[in-house]
Amino acid sequence: MSAEVRVGLLGLGTVGTGVVSIISRHQEELRHQVGCPVTVTKVLVRDKQKHRPVDFDGAFITDDINDVLTDPEIDIIIEVMGGVESTREHLLTALKNGKHVVTANKDLMALYGSELLKVAAENGCDLYYEASVAGGIPIIRSLCDGLAADRITKMMGIVNGTTNYILTKMIQEGSSYEDVLKQAQELGFAESDPTADVEGLDAARKMAILATLGFSMPVGLDDVSVRGISSVTKSDLEYCDQLGYTMKLIGLAKRDDGRVEVSVEPTLLPKTHPLAAVHNEYNAVYVYGEAVGETMFYGPGAGSLPTATAVVSDLVTVMKNMRLGVSGRTVQGPLHERVLKQDNEIESKYFLRLRVLDQAGTFQAVTSLFASHEVSFEKLLQLPIEGEEVAEVIVITHHTSKQNYEALYKKLSELDVIESIESCYRVEGGH
Amino acid sequence: MSAEVRVGLLGLGTVGTGVVSIISRHQEELRHQVGCPVTVTKVLVRDKQKHRPVDFDGAFITDDINDVLTDPEIDIIIEVMGGVESTREHLLTALKNGKHVVTANKDLMALYGSELLKVAAENGCDLYYEASVAGGIPIIRSLCDGLAADRITKMMGIVNGTTNYILTKMIQEGSSYEDVLKQAQELGFAESDPTADVEGLDAARKMAILATLGFSMPVGLDDVSVRGISSVTKSDLEYCDQLGYTMKLIGLAKRDDGRVEVSVEPTLLPKTHPLAAVHNEYNAVYVYGEAVGETMFYGPGAGSLPTATAVVSDLVTVMKNMRLGVSGRTVQGPLHERVLKQDNEIESKYFLRLRVLDQAGTFQAVTSLFASHEVSFEKLLQLPIEGEEVAEVIVITHHTSKQNYEALYKKLSELDVIESIESCYRVEGGH
Repeated sequence: MSAEVRVGLLGLGTVGTGVVSIISRHQEELRHQVGCPVTVTKVLVRDKQKHRPVDFDGAFITDDINDVLTDPEIDIIIEVMGGVESTREHLLTALKNGKHVVTANKDLMALYGSELLKVAAENGCDLYYEASVAGGIPIIRSLCDGLAADRITKMMGIVNGTTNYILTKMIQEGSSYEDVLKQAQELGFAESDPTADVEGLDAARKMAILATLGFSMPVGLDDVSVRGISSVTKSDLEYCDQLGYTMKLIGLAKRDDGRVEVSVEPTLLPKTHPLAAVHNEYNAVYVYGEAVGETMFYGPGAGSLPTATAVVSDLVTVMKNMRLGVSGRTVQGPLHERVLKQDNEIESKYFLRLRVLDQAGTFQAVTSLFASHEVSFEKLLQLPIEGEEVAEVIVITHHTSKQNYEALYKKLSELDVIESIESCYRVEGGH
Repeated sequence: MSAEVRVGLLGLGTVGTGVVSIISRHQEELRHQVGCPVTVTKVLVRDKQKHRPVDFDGAFITDDINDVLTDPEIDIIIEVMGGVESTREHLLTALKNGKHVVTANKDLMALYGSELLKVAAENGCDLYYEASVAGGIPIIRSLCDGLAADRITKMMGIVNGTTNYILTKMIQEGSSYEDVLKQAQELGFAESDPTADVEGLDAARKMAILATLGFSMPVGLDDVSVRGISSVTKSDLEYCDQLGYTMKLIGLAKRDDGRVEVSVEPTLLPKTHPLAAVHNEYNAVYVYGEAVGETMFYGPGAGSLPTATAVVSDLVTVMKNMRLGVSGRTVQGPLHERVLKQDNEIESKYFLRLRVLDQAGTFQAVTSLFASHEVSFEKLLQLPIEGEEVAEVIVITHHTSKQNYEALYKKLSELDVIESIESCYRVEGGH
């Protein structure tokens, strides 16, 4: 290992700026840990003329990626520019040129993680991506090392800050989804096009990464069943509250007898569940292991410095591996083939809110339909709606299979005495 | 590395039994991670005749520690028997014989950690001790690797399950310390001699270990200021509750300008603080880093399988290091010299409960004493006590130095109009 480690930085947005700042401010600590100085020697930017708020210590600023990828003096590439297809090409080039890679790119890792890790190993290079899931929370390390001895059977993650912020405010302020989204956009907690966040896609990418690691099984983005929060209403949240639950956008990854399910959807959790206390833009991942039982990892899911902390921690690991001469040899691929559960193997409780005709026989018709699908009630609430000839029926079911539940749902939607199914959600975290 | 890794296990109590069980049940996963089988070949027990509930797969059971320490075929020693002085001797022998060590022994690591780590490195051996702090929570790894790039400025830990159980029950059931302790002993959550737990010593050992790692500075047990929970009363907890606080036994480690303080004491936390939701026997460590901000690691602090998970995760790390040929080279010693804060540099808020004479001039005498020590009030509550000629005054101060606070405390205790200082606690976690 040379007397100095040279880093090429791809991207100088929020996270990139944080990376430069941490490397420069924590130089003494970094040097102590890895035994030599580390310097960012080249930075790829989109616009070379733009004013930069950070000091580069003489780094070369370029808008040509090949200046970075082909520089023989650069040991490590940090990729924080985003993008998928072209970024994949660039990182493959970097790895084939013998450069280690640290990335914060969840979209890329969810889609091409296996390929990139394979090419890294073939070229004796490291590829680390802690920052791709839950920003400043060292969850990938905890799954790979800290809980290495255990068999993880369940992970539940609040892994998208925007949606957690929106749901928290809707509950605390009794506001509508639309109003809170607008407020979140003004405050910078939501993008101007919030689709990837609010429709659950961002969380799904992260859950694919976590499931792959936690279950040692290649889980792809297409394996994740996804539903966002845009249809959650104030009334839903009020009923949840009355019944002792809160609502979170939960990424769930569960394994039973070697078969897995992965989903992202708005989910009811008991107010006493550790994840129920994770508010605003914070993230947390709850991990259940056969031996360890319940653990939870909590922290900021995004932001310049938190995410940059994860990136630079990976950088430290890469540099330690270089010093020890073990680059590209520290990570194992998945142990198991991918086996997904069928709908008859996915078990859950469900919350249903129905608008029914307020007349004799309705209740009997509804309950007998539940019974014929072998779905039983844990909680049941019927409320008349003032001034109308309809009532609301709120149900929380006992555990049932997704297959039974979906068959029931179809029949309910066809039943004459039911005016509409107002909403339905999965319920987790109980006994 | 040979075709099989051989482990000698010292101690077959709660944790030792869990270790044997995890190694045997998770053999396939372990083999995938380290590339070869791992076997417990020798087990040290106190009484060879005792019936064992675990299956040993033909391991040799002995009551002579030299059978294990001198066996040339054993690669790794797992120490889960406890003890300090003689255990130190044994592990030094093991390390000098070239054996890697994994230990769950916080007493040993708090007192002799630096020495043992030094001897391990000198002999090219690994020494890992994740299980010594907060059982199943991978907090040591998170401090050493996950937050490696950050500068940690504050850690607050609920690192003793017994005291957290007792305080939780006192609050939930409105019971006295004595009643809950008795109940905890009956349920096995407290030892028959609970002194080390309830007087804060156990937590102090863990905080010395965490401070050493988090601040990269050798902090010893003697550097930790310690106070237990045995004087906490029902009334204290009721007043806390009224004022919006909960009470936890908090291990606090704080760094300002390179100077540190470490303490363990019953502490008021706002009910909205992430640590306030950590109930019963659970542990959690809240870590504040300059870059990452707030993070928290939550999980079981004790128990057979949770603690054994941490032990076996360390075992996996040791075996990976053996395979990569980097044993004894992965850990750095502290970067900084130890610099402790003086009392005038330790800043905190305080809760004080005073019993004062209910007569004209009392309030003025008390408040002017506070003012003359430059201690101002954040909250103040005066309550008459029915049928007596005394009143209670409850104060929460603004931030002040420990030096000012202790000078004030002394004067208060000498003041004629104050009958007694009923209780006083540190207040943390606010703004």
